[in-house]
Amino acid sequence: MTVLILTSEEDVTADMVVVHLNASGVPVFRLDPADLTDGVSLSGEFVHGAFRGHLWAAGRLVSIAGLRSVWLRRPGAAAQRAASPSTWLTEEAGQALYGMLRGSEAHWMNHPDAARRARHKPWQLRLAQRCGLPVPATLITTFPQAAREFAARYPDLVVKPVSGAHPQDPPRAVPTSRVAPDTDFSAVAFGPTLLQRRVAKRADIRLTVIGDRLLAARKTTGTEAEVDVRFAASDAPWEAVDVAPRVAEAVLAYMEGAELSYGAFDFVEDADGVWWFLECNQSGQFGFVEVDTGQPIARTIAEWLAQPVAGPESHVNGASARVV
Amino acid sequence: MTVLILTSEEDVTADMVVVHLNASGVPVFRLDPADLTDGVSLSGEFVHGAFRGHLWAAGRLVSIAGLRSVWLRRPGAAAQRAASPSTWLTEEAGQALYGMLRGSEAHWMNHPDAARRARHKPWQLRLAQRCGLPVPATLITTFPQAAREFAARYPDLVVKPVSGAHPQDPPRAVPTSRVAPDTDFSAVAFGPTLLQRRVAKRADIRLTVIGDRLLAARKTTGTEAEVDVRFAASDAPWEAVDVAPRVAEAVLAYMEGAELSYGAFDFVEDADGVWWFLECNQSGQFGFVEVDTGQPIARTIAEWLAQPVAGPESHVNGASARVV
Repeated sequence: MTVLILTSEEDVTADMVVVHLNASGVPVFRLDPADLTDGVSLSGEFVHGAFRGHLWAAGRLVSIAGLRSVWLRRPGAAAQRAASPSTWLTEEAGQALYGMLRGSEAHWMNHPDAARRARHKPWQLRLAQRCGLPVPATLITTFPQAAREFAARYPDLVVKPVSGAHPQDPPRAVPTSRVAPDTDFSAVAFGPTLLQRRVAKRADIRLTVIGDRLLAARKTTGTEAEVDVRFAASDAPWEAVDVAPRVAEAVLAYMEGAELSYGAFDFVEDADGVWWFLECNQSGQFGFVEVDTGQPIARTIAEWLAQPVAGPESHVNGASARVV
Repeated sequence: MTVLILTSEEDVTADMVVVHLNASGVPVFRLDPADLTDGVSLSGEFVHGAFRGHLWAAGRLVSIAGLRSVWLRRPGAAAQRAASPSTWLTEEAGQALYGMLRGSEAHWMNHPDAARRARHKPWQLRLAQRCGLPVPATLITTFPQAAREFAARYPDLVVKPVSGAHPQDPPRAVPTSRVAPDTDFSAVAFGPTLLQRRVAKRADIRLTVIGDRLLAARKTTGTEAEVDVRFAASDAPWEAVDVAPRVAEAVLAYMEGAELSYGAFDFVEDADGVWWFLECNQSGQFGFVEVDTGQPIARTIAEWLAQPVAGPESHVNGASARVV
């Protein structure tokens, strides 16, 4: 059975995983939905209570029933590179492709519904709380007065976007910044603002979770002023680190609650060694961690994707599995 | 506890439901996310492992923990009517609002994830098959040759869009049309095309499902040539009709599989009385059926929305419920 990878051509991180899949002899079918209908074709037939579907790309035909897993990496918008692209064609092609794939029994990394839900920061924070992960005190508000009161209680604050990257093209990461003590919060009324107690950190933690495998890396903080590791000057390398059993249990509960098979957790470690949950990015990059630590992240992803389909009672598309 | 209705101001169908909620004394809080941050405000605090969130609109403040249900009717895009609207503000405001609501214990009609998934026509057809509903032979393809072969097997065909309404503003319904026997299918290569065996029908069926309540209506077909009831000249009224136990069972399995609490099913009835599944619209209108048949659809929706919250083991947000 085949592993389907939906991503752009220039995705070198996907290449790292493909190397391992090729080495183990697992068939891989890679395509970018952006190439529908020019280079990628699809067909599905619903007849006599059954479905038979196929995808075609680069001269190869693959049966949807023959997919063991789907890796939703960094796919382009459907039919974006078609001869005559349009919003309508993208909608039609996307519905056709994902509508067929959603009915398959394949494992997803990650399922589109889980991926979409997992992007909601307030939902992440609530789920992390429920799983018992320490979450720094956080306020999301459009009330200037609520922001002022929060700043009075927690004078050392950072501000960050609610939704992650700015949706310009290419997306721009908005850095987390410290809030000056004399900040005027009246502009909060014009857009939801996320304020969070700044954790005095001695290290950043990146915990990559693949199925039930946990691979944690730690990077010692360079200077006291460094807030956002993505924009940090520290040249300390990422180093592999163990995960405390209590944290591991909470993180696996988070993965189950979020119905994710891949997640990149960001924590900060305080002076007592406590890991504070910042976020879980369901599509987080991992190449830089693998390069620094030598942890087998790509290989572990390949192993997860290569697992056999468990049959109609599998976790995937649980909705339809229940009614089969 | 309060019923939250997310919809536009001019939604008269929602008004029909509000009348019943008001009559039964259930508090209703109605807002359009488009009015964030100008008229609608929000605030949520994650402190000491707990979440406290509030919404404010029209001079009233409501606690998110005090919501018994959320009716996602026809909401505008978040912050669309803000003083300085932008894609970024819509993203931030939408993530803040829905991110907080997704963490609540309220019942959803319908949950945004279920609603989104339910729009995929190929997934609908597959789920209907799995639930044992008769589905007319259907092909979705970008292969002209597959279309030709299908047309040879099923000479009497209709063509319809894969994704439903054309995404122009305002959305335009694309009528289902018959396919002439001498059709040239070469253009199929430029966009996925949905071909379906035309069922010779004697009636259209609209089956409205609210929770486990089924309300079916039947409209006798006017002329043989009439294909799409939405564009039909027939002035036969919709009449209430019973649902065969076998159909009822299959439809309830579909609702469970789709995790929907509201669905408007369209069937056509053939000369043998068989109901053929065409689609299930998770946001289908119902006013016209209620007017013709006198069926208590609005009241049944109000009763569903007014039901008490079952606590942390409720079906809503099952993901986080499992890890509480």
